[in-house]
Amino acid sequence: MTDFFHGIGKIAYEGPDSTNPLAFRHYDPNALVLGKRMEDHLRFAGAYWHSLAYEGLDPFGGRTFQRPWYGDGMDRAFVKADVAFELFSKLGLPYFCFHDADVRPEGKTLVDTVTNLNRVAEVFAQKMEATGIRLLWGTANLFSHRRYMAGAATNPDPEVFAYAAASIKAMMDVTHRLGGENYVLWGGREGYETLLNTDLGQELDQMGRMLSMVVEYKHKIGFKGTILVEPKPQEPTKHQYDYDVATCYGFLKRYGLENEVKLNIEVGHAFLAGHSFEHELALAAALGVLGSIDMNRNDPQCGWDTDHFPNDPQSVALAYREILKAGGFTTGGTNFDAKIRRQSIDPADLFHGHILGMDTCARGLKAAAAMIEEGSLDAALADRYAGWQAPEAQAMLKGERSLDQIADRVLAAERDPEPRSGRQEYLEGLVNRFV
Amino acid sequence: MTDFFHGIGKIAYEGPDSTNPLAFRHYDPNALVLGKRMEDHLRFAGAYWHSLAYEGLDPFGGRTFQRPWYGDGMDRAFVKADVAFELFSKLGLPYFCFHDADVRPEGKTLVDTVTNLNRVAEVFAQKMEATGIRLLWGTANLFSHRRYMAGAATNPDPEVFAYAAASIKAMMDVTHRLGGENYVLWGGREGYETLLNTDLGQELDQMGRMLSMVVEYKHKIGFKGTILVEPKPQEPTKHQYDYDVATCYGFLKRYGLENEVKLNIEVGHAFLAGHSFEHELALAAALGVLGSIDMNRNDPQCGWDTDHFPNDPQSVALAYREILKAGGFTTGGTNFDAKIRRQSIDPADLFHGHILGMDTCARGLKAAAAMIEEGSLDAALADRYAGWQAPEAQAMLKGERSLDQIADRVLAAERDPEPRSGRQEYLEGLVNRFV
Amino acid sequence: MTDFFHGIGKIAYEGPDSTNPLAFRHYDPNALVLGKRMEDHLRFAGAYWHSLAYEGLDPFGGRTFQRPWYGDGMDRAFVKADVAFELFSKLGLPYFCFHDADVRPEGKTLVDTVTNLNRVAEVFAQKMEATGIRLLWGTANLFSHRRYMAGAATNPDPEVFAYAAASIKAMMDVTHRLGGENYVLWGGREGYETLLNTDLGQELDQMGRMLSMVVEYKHKIGFKGTILVEPKPQEPTKHQYDYDVATCYGFLKRYGLENEVKLNIEVGHAFLAGHSFEHELALAAALGVLGSIDMNRNDPQCGWDTDHFPNDPQSVALAYREILKAGGFTTGGTNFDAKIRRQSIDPADLFHGHILGMDTCARGLKAAAAMIEEGSLDAALADRYAGWQAPEAQAMLKGERSLDQIADRVLAAERDPEPRSGRQEYLEGLVNRFV
Amino acid sequence: MTDFFHGIGKIAYEGPDSTNPLAFRHYDPNALVLGKRMEDHLRFAGAYWHSLAYEGLDPFGGRTFQRPWYGDGMDRAFVKADVAFELFSKLGLPYFCFHDADVRPEGKTLVDTVTNLNRVAEVFAQKMEATGIRLLWGTANLFSHRRYMAGAATNPDPEVFAYAAASIKAMMDVTHRLGGENYVLWGGREGYETLLNTDLGQELDQMGRMLSMVVEYKHKIGFKGTILVEPKPQEPTKHQYDYDVATCYGFLKRYGLENEVKLNIEVGHAFLAGHSFEHELALAAALGVLGSIDMNRNDPQCGWDTDHFPNDPQSVALAYREILKAGGFTTGGTNFDAKIRRQSIDPADLFHGHILGMDTCARGLKAAAAMIEEGSLDAALADRYAGWQAPEAQAMLKGERSLDQIADRVLAAERDPEPRSGRQEYLEGLVNRFV
Repeated sequence: MTDFFHGIGKIAYEGPDSTNPLAFRHYDPNALVLGKRMEDHLRFAGAYWHSLAYEGLDPFGGRTFQRPWYGDGMDRAFVKADVAFELFSKLGLPYFCFHDADVRPEGKTLVDTVTNLNRVAEVFAQKMEATGIRLLWGTANLFSHRRYMAGAATNPDPEVFAYAAASIKAMMDVTHRLGGENYVLWGGREGYETLLNTDLGQELDQMGRMLSMVVEYKHKIGFKGTILVEPKPQEPTKHQYDYDVATCYGFLKRYGLENEVKLNIEVGHAFLAGHSFEHELALAAALGVLGSIDMNRNDPQCGWDTDHFPNDPQSVALAYREILKAGGFTTGGTNFDAKIRRQSIDPADLFHGHILGMDTCARGLKAAAAMIEEGSLDAALADRYAGWQAPEAQAMLKGERSLDQIADRVLAAERDPEPRSGRQEYLEGLVNRFV
Repeated sequence: MTDFFHGIGKIAYEGPDSTNPLAFRHYDPNALVLGKRMEDHLRFAGAYWHSLAYEGLDPFGGRTFQRPWYGDGMDRAFVKADVAFELFSKLGLPYFCFHDADVRPEGKTLVDTVTNLNRVAEVFAQKMEATGIRLLWGTANLFSHRRYMAGAATNPDPEVFAYAAASIKAMMDVTHRLGGENYVLWGGREGYETLLNTDLGQELDQMGRMLSMVVEYKHKIGFKGTILVEPKPQEPTKHQYDYDVATCYGFLKRYGLENEVKLNIEVGHAFLAGHSFEHELALAAALGVLGSIDMNRNDPQCGWDTDHFPNDPQSVALAYREILKAGGFTTGGTNFDAKIRRQSIDPADLFHGHILGMDTCARGLKAAAAMIEEGSLDAALADRYAGWQAPEAQAMLKGERSLDQIADRVLAAERDPEPRSGRQEYLEGLVNRFV
Repeated sequence: MTDFFHGIGKIAYEGPDSTNPLAFRHYDPNALVLGKRMEDHLRFAGAYWHSLAYEGLDPFGGRTFQRPWYGDGMDRAFVKADVAFELFSKLGLPYFCFHDADVRPEGKTLVDTVTNLNRVAEVFAQKMEATGIRLLWGTANLFSHRRYMAGAATNPDPEVFAYAAASIKAMMDVTHRLGGENYVLWGGREGYETLLNTDLGQELDQMGRMLSMVVEYKHKIGFKGTILVEPKPQEPTKHQYDYDVATCYGFLKRYGLENEVKLNIEVGHAFLAGHSFEHELALAAALGVLGSIDMNRNDPQCGWDTDHFPNDPQSVALAYREILKAGGFTTGGTNFDAKIRRQSIDPADLFHGHILGMDTCARGLKAAAAMIEEGSLDAALADRYAGWQAPEAQAMLKGERSLDQIADRVLAAERDPEPRSGRQEYLEGLVNRFV
Repeated sequence: MTDFFHGIGKIAYEGPDSTNPLAFRHYDPNALVLGKRMEDHLRFAGAYWHSLAYEGLDPFGGRTFQRPWYGDGMDRAFVKADVAFELFSKLGLPYFCFHDADVRPEGKTLVDTVTNLNRVAEVFAQKMEATGIRLLWGTANLFSHRRYMAGAATNPDPEVFAYAAASIKAMMDVTHRLGGENYVLWGGREGYETLLNTDLGQELDQMGRMLSMVVEYKHKIGFKGTILVEPKPQEPTKHQYDYDVATCYGFLKRYGLENEVKLNIEVGHAFLAGHSFEHELALAAALGVLGSIDMNRNDPQCGWDTDHFPNDPQSVALAYREILKAGGFTTGGTNFDAKIRRQSIDPADLFHGHILGMDTCARGLKAAAAMIEEGSLDAALADRYAGWQAPEAQAMLKGERSLDQIADRVLAAERDPEPRSGRQEYLEGLVNRFV
């Protein structure tokens, strides 16, 4: 144990009336929700990068945090790992996630870099054994280093593509060794700054090829986890190819990967793409590619990714409602890709952020479950579409009627369909009974 | 001839130095560009709706225009047709486009409505014969009437789906009879206002089925034109299913229609979806679904569709560059889905808007052609990706290398790829040599 | 009593556990909050326009609602008034608001129009007497008619300015006669579409003059209510001069009106201007111009005004917290400038919308009051700024120190101030204890 | 002379037909425009920070540039100064601008820091003498260091306020010594992240006090330049107090500074605030606070500040038209607060960016001057407002008519004003004759 968080012990559930800011008021891991433990529904994960590696920089300012593990040596990496597992343990997070670059210093060569990664991974294995914390997913950082400035898989230079492939391979190996339940690819530089220097079709093919190799390698090594792609419309690039759920789905279909790859969907990325988070979840569920979530919101007045911890029970409830309706998580979970504000410089702020997020999610989950158990929302929906159960309607939907057959019937009937109320206000009021 | 545009005759090309506001300064239909007549490149079309049917309404105000053809009778429809063909002729527009609802009054029953449509279509046939103006595309308005308030193909009521099918069938017949070169579907109400009352998966299937029937019917009647879907992210609905090019592509793949259907891409819709127009064009070209364009911009400070006539030669040049690189239009063309401002109440303003748009497009086309002929932009692009021509790079791209094979090679080589300048400023300066 | 809302009686408070959709679960007018009746805190008002005059149109579709009072005659105006007061009464709304154009048909001349207005106002007076419903504010519609297409006060034609002045005068008279507690000006057309045809400085002076005349006339007739201006950044125009609170404040200062005019601040308008609602409230309070509110949200994915009823207790709580901290409403209140969705075509939907809004506001008010009573948020704020209470700090703030005096002290001290945590996550968690 | 830009000499004007990428095609400093040298109109300035201090970082990636002057020692600062003046000289930039932090290393104490600044300023003085390059403006960086994370003037800690005051004083002294023509304040941290920890009214007063001290100190030392405030709506903070021109004007009025302070207006900041650049210029001119400009655009698809070099002649022309109409610059100028893209890693890219910007501005200026000389745009504007020249109109505008007097006249006249076309399309076509 480090003493970085002096005075802060394990965070306990104390119930809604607690005024202790270092306690959960809603997250009770063992409480049963729809017959399953809350922890097993939510499958929370801490993010190594924002909690340990982020230094408080923003585009107009430097480091605000002061942490004993900042620096480049392996000794610092080990201190960082100590604090990370202390934080995750005290918060009761059952999972964590990391990029290779979060946990190890870059070496002089890729061989050194991979060696550093593997050494830290050994430490992780021991800590995971000791604490019971598991790896939700691993991922390779293919966007921070200047070699990737013009893309990793989509780089105009095939040697960068190769370097990225080697980095992914090393990190997939580590993820597999640590029992990771998913492997994620976020294409921060897989996009472009200007079409003037970009061959869009070529780059899509490169990206398709890289993802195919990842899937092939997964099977080769017997990794049973899910390969996840993370949609985001832009930032750092002007345009990222994995724009949103619909775009990723089309990409997977194009390269024949729609049954091999699912999506890791983030609240803030949905927002930047012009969607609600629940839209992205509902669409992914409908298309069969719902994998895991990053539960961090954006500031609604900011046009860039702010990665706030979630704090709005209502919108979180609508999100978990979509997840529950889709059957809940399998290998996926709720990762907090969230950072405390750069002014939140106290170690305790890391706890306040996570407690805020975990409690908000717990409230949302309970509300979503209550909506589903009560049944009125689903009943209203079924009623609205009931007409499609009729034989003639089914015949149209199943392709047993042609355009002119339908036209003949409609023209003969001389009946103009009368619209029915969509009842949005009634339904929003219904939602508020549960939040 | 009506005398609605008294004093305005046929608009002539007078060259860049003309100060006559009722002349073209850049659009010279017979001028050769890359060996083809400018008119045959641009394939301009006038839009019946904005030019004839729009009354100047906006969400906070009523009709500002005063036109002798406003009203519901067939007599008014014929006056409207007279003025429409006078306008299109005087502007030298080789094509026009229309919705069923733009040209005929709604009847008491669908039978009456279709009869009205067919009567107007006969008049159109005569006028097309007389003027040589052709039909770029036809489309059915499935969004204005209250029966469609919850969708047409995606309505929860199958009888609305059927009504829409019958309307499409009638309008496809008319489009076919008039020799239309495309048939367009814009799903203004194919989307949702709230997920609380929406079964997204069901609605996508409905929409897929409708589009499949359209394709089947096209083949049945021997229509040789292209079926086009028009992406737009939202407005009137909160979310439209045909969000953008990438989304439409995924939809077509899902329902096996990617070889049957192409896209009609609009400047303003690209903007609302968070993209540049040239992005949407380049992506559609890369995915093989580039069909036709609506060349009307939005106000960059407005979050809704403003449908201004294009006025910016630079951005128009970048758009036509993508179209020329993709081989130019086949059945598609340049439709002005543009409306004059609601304060532009004089008949002459209809001319000023179109002249502005046509001249801007002509300048853009010429600039785009010059860029391509000169070759520096393309050469810079080829140079940037030249590494991918090497045998090992091709082997990676073609799937002849696995992730671990590549990793082995990279680890052995101990070489970190050195990035090269993306040269964006140089390339932007190059573009400005031609605009 | 009409029977338009057959079967719906007066809406009662039934408490949080009620499942009756036609009951309040949170709004209990007589409940005491911080020692004052909830009704007297919130001062709810129904809006005549959205509830009675809106027909379900949007930019892509026509009327969806079917109401017996649609049409132009005075008889229809009286039916409309009957239903309006039935609706407001059954909802228990203590106030209502209207534009002249909502309640009377336009006459052939302005004399006729004003006569129509006055006749309806007499009916209103009787109904107000009978029901106890009061007028929160009146306003003149200076944006719908084509004469105002280029502005009312800011029109390039001085005769439109004059016509607008006459219309305002008539509506101020009516508002005064009906005991209105405020008079509102919303400048829907006071802005521009393009700078190319706009003399911005001239138009600002015109607007300043009109507002000055309104203030002068208020005093002349002895109207004791507050003159309110309503900020909105755009829509219908590309740019509206009353962009946001800060802009309006500068405008009032420029024309010497900052002590005579306050602001009517709307949730959705704040959002369109890039602000949170609580920002606009806090700023207006700091600048001394907080008047009244329009409590209708926008859809966060839409770039235009959607005027949804509020449904999010958390954000509403943060808004009322600012209002309570500023001392609560004096002449202002909570107006629902909200419309039911165009698919919500049933009469009952008017009730569902208002109940949703009123309950959400009641929850928000109670939460805001609880935050203030508990005191932790305010205490944290006071602690953060405590340093400014020190004498040297006060001397700097009060202008008793010059730049070079301060510099001398700082350079001599050789001390670099150590930052303290902003504690955002802790504070957000604190808020959630009360919502 | 360094040899950092080996092979690149002084950039010459070669005329529009030049294909030399290292030559000006439009910027000819000595060409007369409206009777004044182009250089004297445009008053270009190079920005030390983006060109010399920016390292290519973005929120997701590290340094991409490799410059011999990166590092912390004074020796590096002197190398940086050598390269800076070489760059500015070769480009023929008559002015430059800098923050204190761009040019000197931070010392252990503020005394050291100021000493470092003064030493570099001496070197600048020699170089300015040698090259003839002048200082357009200086400014203090009060946003990068962690001490300023919660604001400089608006910090909750008065000691940060004092530290900022001391830093401004030192930089004002340097600016004065170097003959700077303006002193700029950009309040990057003068705003907030959350209202929960912010006393908005207190912070506005702090900011008002600081600005007042700056003005007082200017007069004390006899600085003849202009004090400029730079509007920006947000980024780095969620909300910045100097949101836009209108907000800054209201702030200046509140603290009685509207005759002492003008604005430095940036293209990209206008865009982020929801305005066109020409709007901000026209408004500043109308309000009497137009000072200087930062001529760097944003990417229209990005929600953050991208600081591209300008490349669009049309929009630049509309901007200079506003500046020329306002009488042109006095102490202000055209600063490129623009950075080459992080992929533009070659030294030559610094030239390509500036040449692109300078040529675009030169084209814009020439087009704007031509519009003004030709006169049609201004004539159309005068015609549109001609009615306001009539005696009765002037009487209304000058306050010689009351609301009821005007109403009486209008009611008696029984005349409904007939609207006139706003002619937007005609005017946009007119603009394109000159661009």
